[in-house]
Amino acid sequence: MTQPALTPDGRLRHFLTLDGLGAARIKDLLDTAEALRPHAAGGTGARQLLAGRTVCNLFFENSTRTRTSFQLAAQRLGADVVNFDIAASSVKKGESDLDTLRTIEAMGVDAFVIRHTENGAVAALADGVLPSTSVLNAGDGRAAHPTQGLLDMLTIRQHKGGDFSKLKVLIVGDVRHSRVARSDLHALRALGCGEIRVCAPQSLLPEADSLVGCVVGQQLDALLEDIDVVMMLRVQRERMEEGLVPSLEEYFSTFGLTRQRLDKAKPNAIVLHPGPINRGVEIAGDVADGTNSVILQQVANGVAVRMAVLKHLLAG
Amino acid sequence: MTQPALTPDGRLRHFLTLDGLGAARIKDLLDTAEALRPHAAGGTGARQLLAGRTVCNLFFENSTRTRTSFQLAAQRLGADVVNFDIAASSVKKGESDLDTLRTIEAMGVDAFVIRHTENGAVAALADGVLPSTSVLNAGDGRAAHPTQGLLDMLTIRQHKGGDFSKLKVLIVGDVRHSRVARSDLHALRALGCGEIRVCAPQSLLPEADSLVGCVVGQQLDALLEDIDVVMMLRVQRERMEEGLVPSLEEYFSTFGLTRQRLDKAKPNAIVLHPGPINRGVEIAGDVADGTNSVILQQVANGVAVRMAVLKHLLAG
Amino acid sequence: MTQPALTPDGRLRHFLTLDGLGAARIKDLLDTAEALRPHAAGGTGARQLLAGRTVCNLFFENSTRTRTSFQLAAQRLGADVVNFDIAASSVKKGESDLDTLRTIEAMGVDAFVIRHTENGAVAALADGVLPSTSVLNAGDGRAAHPTQGLLDMLTIRQHKGGDFSKLKVLIVGDVRHSRVARSDLHALRALGCGEIRVCAPQSLLPEADSLVGCVVGQQLDALLEDIDVVMMLRVQRERMEEGLVPSLEEYFSTFGLTRQRLDKAKPNAIVLHPGPINRGVEIAGDVADGTNSVILQQVANGVAVRMAVLKHLLAG
Repeated sequence: MTQPALTPDGRLRHFLTLDGLGAARIKDLLDTAEALRPHAAGGTGARQLLAGRTVCNLFFENSTRTRTSFQLAAQRLGADVVNFDIAASSVKKGESDLDTLRTIEAMGVDAFVIRHTENGAVAALADGVLPSTSVLNAGDGRAAHPTQGLLDMLTIRQHKGGDFSKLKVLIVGDVRHSRVARSDLHALRALGCGEIRVCAPQSLLPEADSLVGCVVGQQLDALLEDIDVVMMLRVQRERMEEGLVPSLEEYFSTFGLTRQRLDKAKPNAIVLHPGPINRGVEIAGDVADGTNSVILQQVANGVAVRMAVLKHLLAG
Repeated sequence: MTQPALTPDGRLRHFLTLDGLGAARIKDLLDTAEALRPHAAGGTGARQLLAGRTVCNLFFENSTRTRTSFQLAAQRLGADVVNFDIAASSVKKGESDLDTLRTIEAMGVDAFVIRHTENGAVAALADGVLPSTSVLNAGDGRAAHPTQGLLDMLTIRQHKGGDFSKLKVLIVGDVRHSRVARSDLHALRALGCGEIRVCAPQSLLPEADSLVGCVVGQQLDALLEDIDVVMMLRVQRERMEEGLVPSLEEYFSTFGLTRQRLDKAKPNAIVLHPGPINRGVEIAGDVADGTNSVILQQVANGVAVRMAVLKHLLAG
Repeated sequence: MTQPALTPDGRLRHFLTLDGLGAARIKDLLDTAEALRPHAAGGTGARQLLAGRTVCNLFFENSTRTRTSFQLAAQRLGADVVNFDIAASSVKKGESDLDTLRTIEAMGVDAFVIRHTENGAVAALADGVLPSTSVLNAGDGRAAHPTQGLLDMLTIRQHKGGDFSKLKVLIVGDVRHSRVARSDLHALRALGCGEIRVCAPQSLLPEADSLVGCVVGQQLDALLEDIDVVMMLRVQRERMEEGLVPSLEEYFSTFGLTRQRLDKAKPNAIVLHPGPINRGVEIAGDVADGTNSVILQQVANGVAVRMAVLKHLLAG
């Protein structure tokens, strides 16, 4: 899982994780995404790139938003899209995940976009596909969500330029359960981010070795000082039920990003969130809607980034 | 809600209600629908009109039929279609309706077709979209279902001509809970319908001011006399559970449209129903299938009318 | 149900069963499928054939796999596809199946692909459609699954040639509840198969008259001798709950296809299974994945066969 899956001639074959992908390849993908942005919101200008190809969204865990972003990305490249929501349906019938995938693959699928509840499950499935088939990880367990990491980097680069060594980035929230945070950390390190800070309650911090080199703490106000980029994470209601968070109100009072707190950061700091946002839990509504927020730009960049990855995998 | 939402140059921007839209604009939409009918059942003749545009069916209340009609309308104009069934999935995750909409909008959506359980919810969402985005109301609470009103008018016009002042129209059934009836009333009044009669049990009549100018009663046989157009409404089984209707059998015996009763109307009277029909509850099977019934023509017109509205909103 | 539904000029109008279809027409469909195979895994080469036509997958019983196969077949012929999953949604609202179909038909649908839980339900619906509409049976009750029968024949022909009189074919498993077996029997008889053997526990054998002319028994090893083609059937877990099968383990030990048992058949015997497979119930994992297995080829042929049927029905 730490090496990118490549074709014999060095092109990307699968897109499973940003871990080990390397700065050059990440920048290459970001450049492609930037070049595709004029076609990412619609139009017919890129429809020839994947005309006649088929992309299957194979979701073992529901996510209508991410699936729709991938669907639009594929359609705007001219591909056919098949949606297979396994979590929502009784598709399984005792069949193994790989048998399900290989059955759909035999109908003529060029790329699978796979989301799965278990760490490493997407990479395991990628091991079983035909040599001509590509696999994109749309999120596996708590392990990785590499297109989210990529779209976050694209959004940062659009505001702060390509030299990440100058940037101070703060990640706030439930890092422990977040594949988004893990992929962001992979990408920020690969791009040589100047300083990475992490703010979370002890109960929501991951294993220590995943935060090597990061400044870690619980004092949000102090950690926000001089920050260029604030990456907020969603807090699931179930964290409260599990006793990891005392209450959503208390979480907000300690770790919620308010207008007042954001004033500690640099004036032109940008605020990211992978969505869906919980207003009044991890982020105040006026911050989410404010001028520092780039949340909807992240969503728009998501389509461009997914088009870029599909192009790299399939249009070679 | 009583004014049409227009662009600065006077074109339709949203399509939320027929109330206040005016006869000229309604006729204009009907003319466009009539012109599009050759393409409404299939073919590729209109595929250039919205090529590269994206329409999202955002349904906070399930309706496979209406969603499919809008989907086919958009596809036959060449648009990409994304279906977002929120009622059916766990999409919400505590997110506000507007945040859900704005997230999908950021992926590049030109028009939202929205159905919602609450009165006014679609108009409220329309207030929050980008200046470049259009909103179509596919039914909100009991308030409005303007494309249904429009397709009913198109169907009447095809049979009875464009001079509505000559027509006597009877609406029968659960007017109180019916957004279809409300939109039909808006349209019939705008087009100057000669006489509007309403027949329903007292328990299913709406607030009196919504029926100003209508002849209202409980005697179906008498109200059918000399009628040109009979608009039947669906009776939900839940009305019985709520005690608003004694039993479906008794409802049928008093308010059900039978062959015998229909003989009181003009010989060439047409019978409309928005579907799905309850045979033997509000309408006898032989009437639904009979020569006076235009129910399936309404369905066919529905695609044409939705194409017309999408064209007016997006192809300007 | 025993006669093919034809147009006045002798073309196929509906595709409901292989029973009575005749060898010439079956071979004709197989030839078309073979000719379409280059387009069955993707590409844009056949997109003009059904451009502007609309195919509706109307599934009264869930089957994501079969529905996806039909969807891809229609898309690769250039048709628009509408999916209507009635089992999964609350679409019904008390409406009859035929009223549901006729409503969607009125939106402009050229062909319905229908799956239904009840024997004969698809043929009954076909009786109610417009003269211009075609119906394909995607499986009705235990009665028929004719595209599966056709794709099985295509797969056999690709390996064994077109002379079925030379072939010995063994069907193993739950023949009693299997529409696949019934359609395979129709096709094998029509093509003049040399010998048909059936192996199943007494509790899973169908009425005797459906097996006239077949060698029937319970001794799998003996029945496998000298066999060219083994057609395995899926065993549903519910057969155990119904007491028709003692346990899945015991079923496997008596009727499961193992590597060792397969050695009794001809060395180049092929193994078919309609999927989804139950590894270790009716088939050993190494047999399913082994060199004799043609299971994924069946899936690929499924798209080609469905394209062929759609072309025969719609592209006349």
